[in-house]
Amino acid sequence: MTAMRIESDAFGAIEIPADRYWGAQTQRALGVFEIGEERFPACLIHAFGLQKMAAARANLRCGALDAAKAAPIIEAATELRGGRFDDHFPLTVWQTGSGTQTNMNANEVIANRANELLGQPLGTKSPVHPNDHVNASQSSNDSFPTVMHIATVLEITQRLRPALQLLQDRLRERSEAFADVLKVARTHLMDAVPMTLGQSFDAFARQIGHGIDRIDATLARLHLLAQGGTAAGTGLNAPRGFDAAFCQELSALCGADFAPNPSKFEGMASHDALVEVSGALNVLATSLVKMANDVRLLGSGPRCGLGELRIPDDGLTSSIMPGKRNPSIAEVVVQAALQAMGNHVTITMAGASGNFELNVAKPLIIQNLLQSIRVLADASRVFAERLVKGIEPDRARLASNVDNALLAVTALNPVLGYDRVAGITRAALAQGITPRAAAIALDLLSGDEYDRLVDPAAMAGHA
Amino acid sequence: MTAMRIESDAFGAIEIPADRYWGAQTQRALGVFEIGEERFPACLIHAFGLQKMAAARANLRCGALDAAKAAPIIEAATELRGGRFDDHFPLTVWQTGSGTQTNMNANEVIANRANELLGQPLGTKSPVHPNDHVNASQSSNDSFPTVMHIATVLEITQRLRPALQLLQDRLRERSEAFADVLKVARTHLMDAVPMTLGQSFDAFARQIGHGIDRIDATLARLHLLAQGGTAAGTGLNAPRGFDAAFCQELSALCGADFAPNPSKFEGMASHDALVEVSGALNVLATSLVKMANDVRLLGSGPRCGLGELRIPDDGLTSSIMPGKRNPSIAEVVVQAALQAMGNHVTITMAGASGNFELNVAKPLIIQNLLQSIRVLADASRVFAERLVKGIEPDRARLASNVDNALLAVTALNPVLGYDRVAGITRAALAQGITPRAAAIALDLLSGDEYDRLVDPAAMAGHA
Amino acid sequence: MTAMRIESDAFGAIEIPADRYWGAQTQRALGVFEIGEERFPACLIHAFGLQKMAAARANLRCGALDAAKAAPIIEAATELRGGRFDDHFPLTVWQTGSGTQTNMNANEVIANRANELLGQPLGTKSPVHPNDHVNASQSSNDSFPTVMHIATVLEITQRLRPALQLLQDRLRERSEAFADVLKVARTHLMDAVPMTLGQSFDAFARQIGHGIDRIDATLARLHLLAQGGTAAGTGLNAPRGFDAAFCQELSALCGADFAPNPSKFEGMASHDALVEVSGALNVLATSLVKMANDVRLLGSGPRCGLGELRIPDDGLTSSIMPGKRNPSIAEVVVQAALQAMGNHVTITMAGASGNFELNVAKPLIIQNLLQSIRVLADASRVFAERLVKGIEPDRARLASNVDNALLAVTALNPVLGYDRVAGITRAALAQGITPRAAAIALDLLSGDEYDRLVDPAAMAGHA
Amino acid sequence: MTAMRIESDAFGAIEIPADRYWGAQTQRALGVFEIGEERFPACLIHAFGLQKMAAARANLRCGALDAAKAAPIIEAATELRGGRFDDHFPLTVWQTGSGTQTNMNANEVIANRANELLGQPLGTKSPVHPNDHVNASQSSNDSFPTVMHIATVLEITQRLRPALQLLQDRLRERSEAFADVLKVARTHLMDAVPMTLGQSFDAFARQIGHGIDRIDATLARLHLLAQGGTAAGTGLNAPRGFDAAFCQELSALCGADFAPNPSKFEGMASHDALVEVSGALNVLATSLVKMANDVRLLGSGPRCGLGELRIPDDGLTSSIMPGKRNPSIAEVVVQAALQAMGNHVTITMAGASGNFELNVAKPLIIQNLLQSIRVLADASRVFAERLVKGIEPDRARLASNVDNALLAVTALNPVLGYDRVAGITRAALAQGITPRAAAIALDLLSGDEYDRLVDPAAMAGHA
Repeated sequence: MTAMRIESDAFGAIEIPADRYWGAQTQRALGVFEIGEERFPACLIHAFGLQKMAAARANLRCGALDAAKAAPIIEAATELRGGRFDDHFPLTVWQTGSGTQTNMNANEVIANRANELLGQPLGTKSPVHPNDHVNASQSSNDSFPTVMHIATVLEITQRLRPALQLLQDRLRERSEAFADVLKVARTHLMDAVPMTLGQSFDAFARQIGHGIDRIDATLARLHLLAQGGTAAGTGLNAPRGFDAAFCQELSALCGADFAPNPSKFEGMASHDALVEVSGALNVLATSLVKMANDVRLLGSGPRCGLGELRIPDDGLTSSIMPGKRNPSIAEVVVQAALQAMGNHVTITMAGASGNFELNVAKPLIIQNLLQSIRVLADASRVFAERLVKGIEPDRARLASNVDNALLAVTALNPVLGYDRVAGITRAALAQGITPRAAAIALDLLSGDEYDRLVDPAAMAGHA
Repeated sequence: MTAMRIESDAFGAIEIPADRYWGAQTQRALGVFEIGEERFPACLIHAFGLQKMAAARANLRCGALDAAKAAPIIEAATELRGGRFDDHFPLTVWQTGSGTQTNMNANEVIANRANELLGQPLGTKSPVHPNDHVNASQSSNDSFPTVMHIATVLEITQRLRPALQLLQDRLRERSEAFADVLKVARTHLMDAVPMTLGQSFDAFARQIGHGIDRIDATLARLHLLAQGGTAAGTGLNAPRGFDAAFCQELSALCGADFAPNPSKFEGMASHDALVEVSGALNVLATSLVKMANDVRLLGSGPRCGLGELRIPDDGLTSSIMPGKRNPSIAEVVVQAALQAMGNHVTITMAGASGNFELNVAKPLIIQNLLQSIRVLADASRVFAERLVKGIEPDRARLASNVDNALLAVTALNPVLGYDRVAGITRAALAQGITPRAAAIALDLLSGDEYDRLVDPAAMAGHA
Repeated sequence: MTAMRIESDAFGAIEIPADRYWGAQTQRALGVFEIGEERFPACLIHAFGLQKMAAARANLRCGALDAAKAAPIIEAATELRGGRFDDHFPLTVWQTGSGTQTNMNANEVIANRANELLGQPLGTKSPVHPNDHVNASQSSNDSFPTVMHIATVLEITQRLRPALQLLQDRLRERSEAFADVLKVARTHLMDAVPMTLGQSFDAFARQIGHGIDRIDATLARLHLLAQGGTAAGTGLNAPRGFDAAFCQELSALCGADFAPNPSKFEGMASHDALVEVSGALNVLATSLVKMANDVRLLGSGPRCGLGELRIPDDGLTSSIMPGKRNPSIAEVVVQAALQAMGNHVTITMAGASGNFELNVAKPLIIQNLLQSIRVLADASRVFAERLVKGIEPDRARLASNVDNALLAVTALNPVLGYDRVAGITRAALAQGITPRAAAIALDLLSGDEYDRLVDPAAMAGHA
Repeated sequence: MTAMRIESDAFGAIEIPADRYWGAQTQRALGVFEIGEERFPACLIHAFGLQKMAAARANLRCGALDAAKAAPIIEAATELRGGRFDDHFPLTVWQTGSGTQTNMNANEVIANRANELLGQPLGTKSPVHPNDHVNASQSSNDSFPTVMHIATVLEITQRLRPALQLLQDRLRERSEAFADVLKVARTHLMDAVPMTLGQSFDAFARQIGHGIDRIDATLARLHLLAQGGTAAGTGLNAPRGFDAAFCQELSALCGADFAPNPSKFEGMASHDALVEVSGALNVLATSLVKMANDVRLLGSGPRCGLGELRIPDDGLTSSIMPGKRNPSIAEVVVQAALQAMGNHVTITMAGASGNFELNVAKPLIIQNLLQSIRVLADASRVFAERLVKGIEPDRARLASNVDNALLAVTALNPVLGYDRVAGITRAALAQGITPRAAAIALDLLSGDEYDRLVDPAAMAGHA
């Protein structure tokens, strides 16, 4: 049997497991929202630690908290940021659309811990009160969106950006390594003209490069924080200057460049800035799907596929076909990308669903957004290190394909004109011969002329 | 330090925590797929228990396993179904698109446990081998889709259907309780003609009723199983009749009505049946959004909103505005629904992404589908029991609104014609008077005639 | 200069082109909604003709219209149904969310035409009034959703169903024609075990068959009509029995099986039935994407691709690469399917956006839904007749691939066990030899034994 | 009977209506793609005019065309750009995924017209050949994506940006006009603390301002053109420097800032830049939905709704409820936004569907993107001019609501503490009295103290 203690709030007394730091509102919410199992990721809980640290420091500067209360609040919030209370956030994301219950959870954990640091047992709400002191100059209305932005910025800068940079680097390396490897281009999946394998990987690397730029472009609006808006955006009960002081403290704590949103109303009523981030992730996801599919298809075989690439062996195999090797990592990249693309729809609909002074799909938005960032970052890193890094060309297959590339004859257009060149390809296909043989048979060119005009390496080098 | 044991597979030896029942392929996959944190819900793991039980029984019947091996396999699989090994499935959903690693995880856990039951230490793979015996007559290609169907059917029948039935019942009860409560209808959000509050809840109840019918209609195709298709759908290495024997055993075990898919190829290469289920959930989600929004809006206030409904107090409040009550549960219903609607896009794209003999987005599809079912079921249940059940009308506000319903004059159309009635509403609006006063002032009707012709209760009862 | 006439409505007089049959409300709407260029497809306008025909007949039966007015209304509506007034519906779909303007457009066109038939000039609104007579016993609230259902049912039964049946037939023919053509199965895009090409096309045919069943299953709810609900669902000003009389008349006119929705409120406030149809189309779209991609990939080449299928020549080629043939039709099938999949999201969001007694995204929903039906139907027909019908296997390539199918050795599992068979594939791959040679070299089997146990035709026939 | 002429291409002769400027490949495509009715918008056809003008000029500069051929090509392309040949593009968007047929349509129209200018009859293909001269140094692979970018840039700068600027201006005007109008804020749809109506419109204006910034941010990548990549991105048959010359000519022609994409392969194989634009539109769409819904809800009534805003009369009304006024324009804004949000999913899926050197969903992508731009621009303009501009507050209703705003007591938190203030609201609600009366009754404050501390104007001015 779990030992229990009693806490109370405006609605009366309630039992709480004695060793848990949360309080009455959290416990009450547990009873109401028996829905699903999804908890916020640790990065969001830690961002609450940062937010409460910065708020307490700003309250101290603005005179809204005295040092005797601010100090234990800051200490407790620092512990929260560091992960000490991860197990004291029992609620799922399926809660009030303002995220109030998780904000109250943070207030209650910090208040209990601060009072404990001051020698009080859990549950006293004194001298540090979860609403009056931990939440001083704040509301869930401004704190939760602020935490959403903090967690998103940190996950982007600390997790996603490095992973994308790594992926771009690995693609760039492959591009350089394959700069001279000729291959047949494919348009409409059909054999086209010669190019180099390096050019393929260069295009991939550029896609990721643009993806990084797109994500970076969202930071300008992510850095604007609703904090200081308190109830509904009005700033009621927050001292003048609190918003700026908060952003300074927070920026100092986490090395970012946060600033007050000039309209706190905008920052609570809408989450356009987060829909925007999700949109940037959505583009990245389309890039990853394209890239992973190309790699899978070019590596298909080993004997009846395209077989132009050799994908590193990951040690995993089929449960029935012994020794079968599958492009598992490319498949997981595609799956992660499709998750982000669907999450984007959820985030978009949630972003459009606000009314008046509050968007009430905040937990949904941030949960989906942080999942998208996480899985795209992780998938990109694994893709870079375990697949792209070790890709090798099958040079024999590539060369044989280049030799068979019927439409290399396109190089003859300026000399023979489109219509006569079309005659060459038709003849070659119909008779199952090389286009060179067809050109000669049609008396359009000598073999020497053909070889001079149709030079795969020159064609590929052209671009 | 965790004690380790050594297991080996086709790729060599590998260290595994000594107290874990998984084997070499699972351990290897852990090292490859360091992506995200999402694990399959327990219901999928338990469905694997059912699938392996039924497979072992069918193998015994078909002579593909002897009783000495089948018995401990069945016993271990029964334990798996019961939840004993939930902590022995360490992989996330971010794995090969066939779900091979989780199938191998199940094979390895059962093999280890079966051998343990036979007195062997973990890791021997003998006498029970994870591939040759636990996976006998099976492939991941057929087993994973089979488990996807099993888990979906059980979650629908055991979790979602009862929750929806409950919600429909509660809505029906409210509809009957409010059968005589007049209210003003609103079209385009604007005041329209009189109706009853019971009619509103009747429409809600019918939406849920149709939703149940839609979900039930998907079962016909969910009951078709790919099991028996083994590699790629060919049925290679499965004894004749295995598919039918499997479905009989499985149906007996879980009281459903499974049958072999006449084309195993269809059941592996596509997951149209699951996209279909997701589509039915998507309709349900739109119904829930509409309903929850109506309830939120009609309950808005307490003094400056529409204020026609009183929503039960859930004991949760604002972190800054003391005593404020919010429609938390309606908000969580909307959020759950938007999640399912976005998941539907992921599932759709994943469903479209198959090639040749295999769809390789299986883990993604089933994870999203089971989440949708879970959160829609839970949200529906909480909505029914904690909100709908306790809704009460604000009769004074409703009656006052009915008295103010300008467009009750629509009832005069058959007598005065559309154009003259339009004159009444224009005059009433312009002069801020009742339409009755306007009709009299315009000399179109006497007061008595008006009262006889414009009778809100009669109008509402008309439908 | 266009000659103009003057009409008037409750808001005053307005100029209308003299030769147009629309009236004041339509003309006014033209001035308000200068948005986009999308007009409703003709099938929707014609469905309005049917709806007004059935309404006038029902009004006659119920005594709400006398024969002198009903007859010309019915005649005019019959002409509307037949396409005579297609150019008299100038509004785009971007209008009030109830579709009121297009309903009024229909009322005005029919009133003007009916009065003309009675010898009056356009614009008299007498003896037939657009609201009082053409719209008698009706509202836009019930008429527009009724027309949405009529158009959807007719487009499904007359356009989509025949196209899908044709596609299924063509796929079935190919399946039978290719019943004995061996090919290598591909899972994860990688070579797997032998199967037949007929099995691939059988799976396709079954996907379409299930798709037909799914679409048919939606008809039960599509047949329920909101007509009779008039304002907000109340039925105000409609005679008792009008709804049933309307459905009888309509069903007789178009050979369908319409019935009154027991809750008119449900049929106006939500469009779950149409979201459901879109969901069924969405599954069909995923099937088509999968199928078209398979065909494109299997037909890739002509020399450096998979090259197992030969796609009929459609006479289209590249603008620069002379004679290049591309799988144009498969590409258009994919594009049509992706359109339907995105439309489904629009329809879903629109379906969720209703409030109280009216969903006000009706024009958006029906426009997207009719587009999805149209392009899926047309694309399926073209796919069936111009591509599937003429597909031929490249038997030489297919046979060579079967000979190279490494994992045909899976058939040895029951004899040698999974781990020893894995040794064969590893050796074959490493040394670039056939698995038969590897098995012999590893001393596991004689050549004769191998040939007896590993028989592609037998393996494929197994399923 | 239409008079016909005969043209021929590599596949033989074909009949074409004598008065049409298109040629054999267009005519052939008409016979193949009998799908749907959607034609590209005129802006895309005109962009083809621009592209062919710039290409001919660049060819002249690079020596790939002589002046005798370049001059009539430029003249014909100039006419194409000007709209002269809009009726000579008969194909729907449902064509090969490279847009080849519409590129060939442009080539054929220009060749025919150029030859006509040179005194030749239609169909001669001489002296100007559609492939060899009009398409010189080009492929559909690079021309179509270039045209996609041109049309998108021009539609953004000439249509969308001005409309959004107008909307922002109108919102800003309302914000300033309503700077002193107090209202009750609503969070969770529930009455919260006082604010000003100006603050609401300021938040709207900022949303649009950010929206403009987001769209502008996409131009950097939209300005990069694939032109010069010819077949598959290789640049085969284009003279060195053609890409730069083309961009200079084009930029001069349309006043934009185009530059060659450093990887033509990236610009053909993926359309990330267009998915990005669609993502920016998607954010704008969510802003518009939120805004339009707020306006609709605040304007609801006239007597039983929130009734705080008066929406301008647009002269449209109900077909049954005489004189009823509905927020038609807000509804069409929402519908346009939902269209763009669904189109975004289509575009995203299409963007992810490329393989190897070509994305073959180009017609689908550009059709959806141009529709989104068009309807968002038009809807924003109509919203600005016909709705926002004329919005007026209902001052009496607003003031009465502010007086009733229970949670204005939040201002007492710093004086009384959260828990005691909660007691005031509970008492006020339970007894149906004002919070002032409750505060006095509870002996917490005198009336004078209350009035000094709870000052709505001061609270609203706080932010």
